[in-house]
Amino acid sequence: MPGPAIAPSELRRRYRAVRAVTETLCAPLLTEDYQTQAAAEASPPKWHIAHVTWFFETFLLKPHHPDYRAGFPGFEVLFNSYYESIGKFHPRNQRGHLARPSVEDVYRYRRTVDAAMEELFDLLEQQPDAGICGFIELGLHHEQQHQELLCMDIKANFAVNPLKPAYRHDLPRRTVESTRPMRWVELGEGLHEIGHVRGSGFAFDNESPRHRVWLDRYRVADRLVTNGEYLAFIESGAYTQAAHWLSDGWAHIRRHDWQHPLYWERDGQGGWLEMTLGGWRPLDPHAPVCHVSYYEAEAYARWAGQRLPTEAELEVVLAQQPLQGNTFEQGFLHPMPAGPEGQWHGDLWTWTGSAYLPYPGFRPLEGSAGEYNGKFMCNQMVLRGGCCATSLDHLRASYRNFFYPHDRWAFTGIRLAGNC
Amino acid sequence: MPGPAIAPSELRRRYRAVRAVTETLCAPLLTEDYQTQAAAEASPPKWHIAHVTWFFETFLLKPHHPDYRAGFPGFEVLFNSYYESIGKFHPRNQRGHLARPSVEDVYRYRRTVDAAMEELFDLLEQQPDAGICGFIELGLHHEQQHQELLCMDIKANFAVNPLKPAYRHDLPRRTVESTRPMRWVELGEGLHEIGHVRGSGFAFDNESPRHRVWLDRYRVADRLVTNGEYLAFIESGAYTQAAHWLSDGWAHIRRHDWQHPLYWERDGQGGWLEMTLGGWRPLDPHAPVCHVSYYEAEAYARWAGQRLPTEAELEVVLAQQPLQGNTFEQGFLHPMPAGPEGQWHGDLWTWTGSAYLPYPGFRPLEGSAGEYNGKFMCNQMVLRGGCCATSLDHLRASYRNFFYPHDRWAFTGIRLAGNC
Amino acid sequence: MPGPAIAPSELRRRYRAVRAVTETLCAPLLTEDYQTQAAAEASPPKWHIAHVTWFFETFLLKPHHPDYRAGFPGFEVLFNSYYESIGKFHPRNQRGHLARPSVEDVYRYRRTVDAAMEELFDLLEQQPDAGICGFIELGLHHEQQHQELLCMDIKANFAVNPLKPAYRHDLPRRTVESTRPMRWVELGEGLHEIGHVRGSGFAFDNESPRHRVWLDRYRVADRLVTNGEYLAFIESGAYTQAAHWLSDGWAHIRRHDWQHPLYWERDGQGGWLEMTLGGWRPLDPHAPVCHVSYYEAEAYARWAGQRLPTEAELEVVLAQQPLQGNTFEQGFLHPMPAGPEGQWHGDLWTWTGSAYLPYPGFRPLEGSAGEYNGKFMCNQMVLRGGCCATSLDHLRASYRNFFYPHDRWAFTGIRLAGNC
Amino acid sequence: MPGPAIAPSELRRRYRAVRAVTETLCAPLLTEDYQTQAAAEASPPKWHIAHVTWFFETFLLKPHHPDYRAGFPGFEVLFNSYYESIGKFHPRNQRGHLARPSVEDVYRYRRTVDAAMEELFDLLEQQPDAGICGFIELGLHHEQQHQELLCMDIKANFAVNPLKPAYRHDLPRRTVESTRPMRWVELGEGLHEIGHVRGSGFAFDNESPRHRVWLDRYRVADRLVTNGEYLAFIESGAYTQAAHWLSDGWAHIRRHDWQHPLYWERDGQGGWLEMTLGGWRPLDPHAPVCHVSYYEAEAYARWAGQRLPTEAELEVVLAQQPLQGNTFEQGFLHPMPAGPEGQWHGDLWTWTGSAYLPYPGFRPLEGSAGEYNGKFMCNQMVLRGGCCATSLDHLRASYRNFFYPHDRWAFTGIRLAGNC
Repeated sequence: MPGPAIAPSELRRRYRAVRAVTETLCAPLLTEDYQTQAAAEASPPKWHIAHVTWFFETFLLKPHHPDYRAGFPGFEVLFNSYYESIGKFHPRNQRGHLARPSVEDVYRYRRTVDAAMEELFDLLEQQPDAGICGFIELGLHHEQQHQELLCMDIKANFAVNPLKPAYRHDLPRRTVESTRPMRWVELGEGLHEIGHVRGSGFAFDNESPRHRVWLDRYRVADRLVTNGEYLAFIESGAYTQAAHWLSDGWAHIRRHDWQHPLYWERDGQGGWLEMTLGGWRPLDPHAPVCHVSYYEAEAYARWAGQRLPTEAELEVVLAQQPLQGNTFEQGFLHPMPAGPEGQWHGDLWTWTGSAYLPYPGFRPLEGSAGEYNGKFMCNQMVLRGGCCATSLDHLRASYRNFFYPHDRWAFTGIRLAGNC
Repeated sequence: MPGPAIAPSELRRRYRAVRAVTETLCAPLLTEDYQTQAAAEASPPKWHIAHVTWFFETFLLKPHHPDYRAGFPGFEVLFNSYYESIGKFHPRNQRGHLARPSVEDVYRYRRTVDAAMEELFDLLEQQPDAGICGFIELGLHHEQQHQELLCMDIKANFAVNPLKPAYRHDLPRRTVESTRPMRWVELGEGLHEIGHVRGSGFAFDNESPRHRVWLDRYRVADRLVTNGEYLAFIESGAYTQAAHWLSDGWAHIRRHDWQHPLYWERDGQGGWLEMTLGGWRPLDPHAPVCHVSYYEAEAYARWAGQRLPTEAELEVVLAQQPLQGNTFEQGFLHPMPAGPEGQWHGDLWTWTGSAYLPYPGFRPLEGSAGEYNGKFMCNQMVLRGGCCATSLDHLRASYRNFFYPHDRWAFTGIRLAGNC
Repeated sequence: MPGPAIAPSELRRRYRAVRAVTETLCAPLLTEDYQTQAAAEASPPKWHIAHVTWFFETFLLKPHHPDYRAGFPGFEVLFNSYYESIGKFHPRNQRGHLARPSVEDVYRYRRTVDAAMEELFDLLEQQPDAGICGFIELGLHHEQQHQELLCMDIKANFAVNPLKPAYRHDLPRRTVESTRPMRWVELGEGLHEIGHVRGSGFAFDNESPRHRVWLDRYRVADRLVTNGEYLAFIESGAYTQAAHWLSDGWAHIRRHDWQHPLYWERDGQGGWLEMTLGGWRPLDPHAPVCHVSYYEAEAYARWAGQRLPTEAELEVVLAQQPLQGNTFEQGFLHPMPAGPEGQWHGDLWTWTGSAYLPYPGFRPLEGSAGEYNGKFMCNQMVLRGGCCATSLDHLRASYRNFFYPHDRWAFTGIRLAGNC
Repeated sequence: MPGPAIAPSELRRRYRAVRAVTETLCAPLLTEDYQTQAAAEASPPKWHIAHVTWFFETFLLKPHHPDYRAGFPGFEVLFNSYYESIGKFHPRNQRGHLARPSVEDVYRYRRTVDAAMEELFDLLEQQPDAGICGFIELGLHHEQQHQELLCMDIKANFAVNPLKPAYRHDLPRRTVESTRPMRWVELGEGLHEIGHVRGSGFAFDNESPRHRVWLDRYRVADRLVTNGEYLAFIESGAYTQAAHWLSDGWAHIRRHDWQHPLYWERDGQGGWLEMTLGGWRPLDPHAPVCHVSYYEAEAYARWAGQRLPTEAELEVVLAQQPLQGNTFEQGFLHPMPAGPEGQWHGDLWTWTGSAYLPYPGFRPLEGSAGEYNGKFMCNQMVLRGGCCATSLDHLRASYRNFFYPHDRWAFTGIRLAGNC
C-alpha cells in the first residue's frame, strides 16, 4: 500500500541509507555468526542479507530493469522466503545448512543488485513510475523488517552459546533509580476509525482499508510492565498454577517446562541475568519485561486483574502520541526503563488481545506481493507499537505486527488495559 | 449465564427429558462401541455418558444435596474433562484405554445420580434457589453439547472401521432433484448489538455481555455451499495449488495429504461416497458439504471470489430468521439439501472468519465453571448456527461454537459472505 | 519346522485342548476388556482370539479344506498381523479402534473355523498329510504364543487403569521366608551344539539348523535376580548414574524418565507395589524382578560385576535341566521365589546378551509362513527359558524369544552369568 | 589396547604427521563450511578439529603434563563428545549452533595443545612411560577416525546444498571398461581365532580378547557389489516389494520414502548422478555401490540369493589378504572399480550380518576411556574392511566399525557371502 509518490531521487537516497543500515548492523559479525541458525524460526544473518537483496532483484530488477541479467544461479530458490507464486524455496528450518554461497558471495550479490538498482533509479529519474517507486518503497520497508529480524535472530544465536558471547560490548544503557509509576490513559466510548489513512505515507496492505470500529470506554497503561512487576508474578508461583493460563498456554508451558521469560537465567545468587545484544546483564527491575509469549502476557494481565488491549484500542491511543521513543536510532537495542513521559512507541512490541485477521474489505496486493501479509492471517496475534529494533521511519500507529501465541524470540512486551 | 428463573418442577421435567435423549442416542450401540476411541479428539461414548453425570454430581449434588455421598471412587478423576480447579483428570487421548468402569457400571452411576437429582428437585420445590436452578440448566445444556459430541464421536469411530458399519440403518433422508440457487441477503451498514440479551433465556457466559459493533454493508448467502459446488473446487485442482490457501492451511493439507473433506472416499467408479451416521452413502451433490476445516472453508470462499462472514455479521442475520431448521429433532443426523426457504439454523455449524476471543467486558462464571469456556479463547475460530445434531431448545442466534482451524470431525460447513 | 508326524487324531485332541485354553484364559474378561488397547504394542484380547483363528483359516482351511468358504468379509485384512505376502493389514497400533466385529461375532468366527477344522481332521484321518499336520502344529504353537501375549496385554490394559482392577482376584501365590542364595553352575570350554535337534519334536524355523559353537569356560546363576537384589541397584542411585548404562539405554531411561521396572509403584509408605494379573500387590523381595528391559538387565549385571549369558551359553545349560518350572500350568501367572532346586525353565524369559540373528544356514519356512520369524532378525535381543505364562508343552531349551532392548511389557527377567 | 611400546621420538613424528593430515584435509574449506551441520549425525568440521584436540588435552595434558594450564574456558564442555565421566557435553545435534569459538580460535587451541604436546614428548624422551605413550597412540587413532568422519560429514554438508558445490574439484578417479566379474573365495569349516593378536600393534579395546569361533564352510565374494548390480535391484522394483526386506527395514524405507542409496539423484535423462567429495558425477556402473544402509545391504543380498558375511567370516578372509587397497592415501576419497586382483581392504566399509556386541571376556579400558567403545554395544551392526577415507596405518583385519542399521552417511558398501 504505497504512500504518495516519492521522487526517485529521494527514493534513491533512502535506498542507499536503508541498505547501509543493514550492513552496519552486520559489521560486528564474524563469518561464523553469519552462517549460524540456532533455532528453526531464526534465520542465519547471511540469509537475511541475501533475501532482502533477492526481494529487489525479484520484484524490481527482473520485471523493470530492461537489461538486468540474473547472475547468481540458484539464488532465486535459496533466498525466496515463502512466495509460492514465485517458485520453490529452501525449507526455512534448513537455511543454516547452506554453507554456500559464502558470505563474500552474498555481499557480491548485494553489490551487483545495488549497482543495477542505481541504474533503475537513473531510469526512474528520466521516466518516473509511481508503481515501481511504490514497490521500491515496499522493498525498503521489507528490508527494515529484516533489520529487526536480524537483531532478534542474532540474539537467538548468541543466547544458546555456553561461551556467552555478546553481539556488541559497547551498547549504551539507561538506568533509573526507581520504577516510574504506571498511570492509566482513559478513553470514552465511541465510533473510531483505525487503519492506514490513504495517502498519508507508507503502510503495508494489511493496515487497510481504514474503517470504523465501536469501542466502549477503556483505559490503557502509559508504560510497559517491568521486570520487577513480572518477577512478582513468577514469585507468586504463577507458572505452576493452571488458574492463570489459557488452556493452550498451560499445555505449552508445561510441555516446554517454561518457568520464566526467554533469555532469563538465574545468576546463582538469588538474582537473575538477562541475555541482551550487549551480552548477559543483571536483570533491571525497572526496565520492561521482554521476550514473553502471548500466553505469558495474557496470564500476567489476568493475574494483575487487568487485560491486554485490543489492537483497535491500542491504535487509537498510539495515534494520539508523538511518534518517538526507544527505537533503533537510540542505539540501545534493548528496552529501557520508562521516563517521566511514559512509554508509547518503541521499546517493545505489545501483545494485543486481537487475532491477526483481515480488516473489513481487506484486499491483498496484486501478484506475488499479495503473499506478503494476507496468507498469514490465521493462528497469530497482533502486536503493536514497534520496538527498540524498529527504525522510526518504518513505524506508524497503524502498524500491525503478528506472531504465534507461543513465539517469544521477538522483542515483545506487555501493556495493560482495562474497562472503566 | 442462566436465563430467568425456571420453576423447579419445569426444570425436573427438562432434566428427565434431556437425560433420556442421551440414553436414546446410545441405544443402538454395542458395548464395544461404547468403549472405543478412534481419534484423540473423540471420546468413547462411555466416557461421555459418565462425564455429563459427573457434571451434575460435581456441581450440583456435592455442593447442594445435603445427604449426597459419592459412591464411585475414582470417578472424580476419570470423568473430569478439564477442570483444573476441581482436581486431576485422566488424559483426554487415553480415555479409550479405560476398560473399567464397565458400561453397566456407568449406567448404574447415571441412575444413582439421577435418583439423587430427583431428591434435589424435591428440595428445590420446597425451597427454590435460582442459583442452583441456573446451574442445573447449565448442566442440561452441557449434556446437550455432549449429545452432539456423541454424534460426532460415534461417527469418527465408525468411519475408521474397514467393515463399514453404520450407527443406524434406518435414518431418514431428504432428496431433491436439483440444487436450490443461492441468493444473497444484504444488510446495510450500522451499529448493531450482538450477544446474549440479558434475561432472555439461557446462554453460555461467552455470549455476554451484549455489546455494540459497527458493521459495514455486507451480504450473506441464504444457504450453505453444497457438495456439488465443493467438488468443482476439488476438480479445479485447488488442493494442489498454494495460491488458494492460508499459509498454515497449505502446510497442514500437505503434511496430512488432504485431498477432500473428511469422510469422503472415492467409490471406484468416478464418484464419491460419504460416511454418515446412516453408513456410507453416495455423495449427494445438492446437500451441504460437511466436515471441512476452517482452512478448507476459507480457501473455498477465496476460490469462489467471496469470503466467510464474521461472527457478528452472521449473528445479526441469524437473529432475524425463525429458529427452525434441520436440527436434532428432525432425525436426519446429517445435513440435508436446502429447501425453497434457504438454510439458516441447523444443518451445519458455519465457520466464520472470527477468532474465538472474549467479548468486550466478558467475565467468566464464578468458580470452577469459569473454566467452561473462557480458557479456550485462543487459537480457535468461531462457528455459528447449530447443526443437524443440535437440539432446537439448545440453540439460539448468539451461540458461539469454536474449533481449531484444522478440526473437521464436527458437523461443519461453509456459508459465503461478501461486501456490497 | 514341524517335528515328527503326529497322528491326526492326536493332533485333533491337541487342537481342542489348545483352543480351549485360549477361551478359558479370556473367561474373566468383560466385553470392554476385550476391546481395549492401552499401548501400541499390546493388542486387544478380541484381536488376539480372532487372529489365531485367522491363522488356521488362512494357512489351513483356505488352501487345504476342499469346501471351505470364507464367511467373514474383511477379516482377512483386520486379523492379518503382518504377513505382507498375504495382503494388506490393519495398523497394529489401531487395533483398539475397531469396535466391530463384536466380541460375539469373533466367537462366532472361532466356532465356524473350529467346525471346519474338525472336518479337516476328518479328512486327515482318512488321508494323512504330514505337511498339513505340520502346519496345524505350527498353528497350535502360534496360538500358545498368543496365550502368552494375552497375559501380557491384559496386564498392560489393566495396569493403566486408575481404578486398579485385577484380571483375577483368585490367583494363587507362593511365598518364602528368605531369598534362596544364588549359586553358579560352571561349564568347561568346548565345542557345543545348539539349536533344534531335527526330528525331536516341534520347533520354530529360527531354532534351526542345529550347529556348532565354541564356548569358553563360563558360569550361569541357578536362579533369577530377585526384587530385593534389584532394589539395591535402584537404591544405589543406578538410574541416575550414566556409568552403568549402555549409551542407548541411558538415553532411553532419561527420555522416558524410567526410575524402576514397569508396573512398580511406590506404596506411599516407603515400600513398593507391583502390578500383577492378580492386581496390585506389595513387592515380594524374594521373587524374581520382572518387566525389565534389556537396558536394565544389562546395567544391573554390570553393576553387579557380572554379565548376561549369551543365548548359546544359556541353551547349553537349559538343555541339561529337566523341563519343568513355574509355567502356565502352575496357575500363578507371575514369577515366584526360587525353591531349593533353583530356577531354570519358566518364571521369566531371561534376557541374553545375544542379538536375534539367523543361525548359520538358517532358511525360513516356504511361502508366507516364512514371514513368521525371519524378517524380525534385526534390532532385537534374544530371551530364553519361557515364563509363567508359557505352556510347558510349548517350551523347549532351543526356544528363541526376542524383543527390542527397550521392551518390558513381556514377562522378562535377569539371570547372571560370568567367565571363570 | 595399545600395541608394543613405541619410542617417544617415533610417536612424536607420528603425532606431527597425523595432526598435519587433519589440517590438510580441512584446507579446502571456507569458514562457512567449517561451521555447518546439515544433519544431526554429522558434526561441523570446526567441532571435529577442536574435539580431537580436546582429546589430547583431556587425556594427556591435564593428567600428565606437569605445567599444563587449560586456557580455553568452556571448551571442556563444548568439545567433549560423549564422555559422561568427564562431565557435561553440548548436545550433538546442536553443535552447528555454536558460532563461537571461531575457526581461528579453534586453530589457536590446536596450536596451544600441539605446543604442550611437544613439551610432553620432551618429557617422555627423558622418562619414557608406556602407559602415556599408549594413550597418545590411542589419541592418534582417534584423530584418524575423525579424519574419516570429516570426509563423511563434509560430504553430508555439501550434498544438501542446491548449488551443488564440491569439496574438491581436482580429485582423481579410476575408470574401467567393464565390471570385473565377481569370484568366490571359499573357506573350509573349522575353529578359527579372531580378534586382536596381543602385542601385534595397535587395536581398540573392542577387538579383544582374541578368541576362538567355529565357522562352517563358507564363501565370500572377492569384490564389492557394484552400482550396476545394485541398479538391477532397484529396477526390479525391490524398493516397493516387502518380500525382500527385514520388517524394520521395510518400515524405515517407507517412512522415509527411500528409493535408492543416499546421494543418488536422477539426472533427468534416464540416468543417475552420485554425490562425491569431488562433486556430483554420473554414476559409474562398475564402481562399488556406496552409502547404503544395513537394511539395503541385507535386502540386496537376499534378493541376489546370497547373504552378508558375519564379522568372523570376514575377518578370517581379510587377515589372509595383503593390507592394501583404495585407502585414504590413494587420494580418490571415493570407492573405485575393482581391479583384476579384486577388492579387500579399503574402498568401503562392508556391512556384516553381525550385531556389535562384546567379545567373550571383553573388558573396556580403565577410566573414562572405557566409554570409547563399550557403551555402544547395542542396536548397531559391525562393518569391516576400512574405506577410501581410512588411513592405511589405521587399518587392520580385526578392526570393528559399527553403525545403526539405518545409517548410510558413512562410506558403506556390500560384499556378498554364502554357504557352500
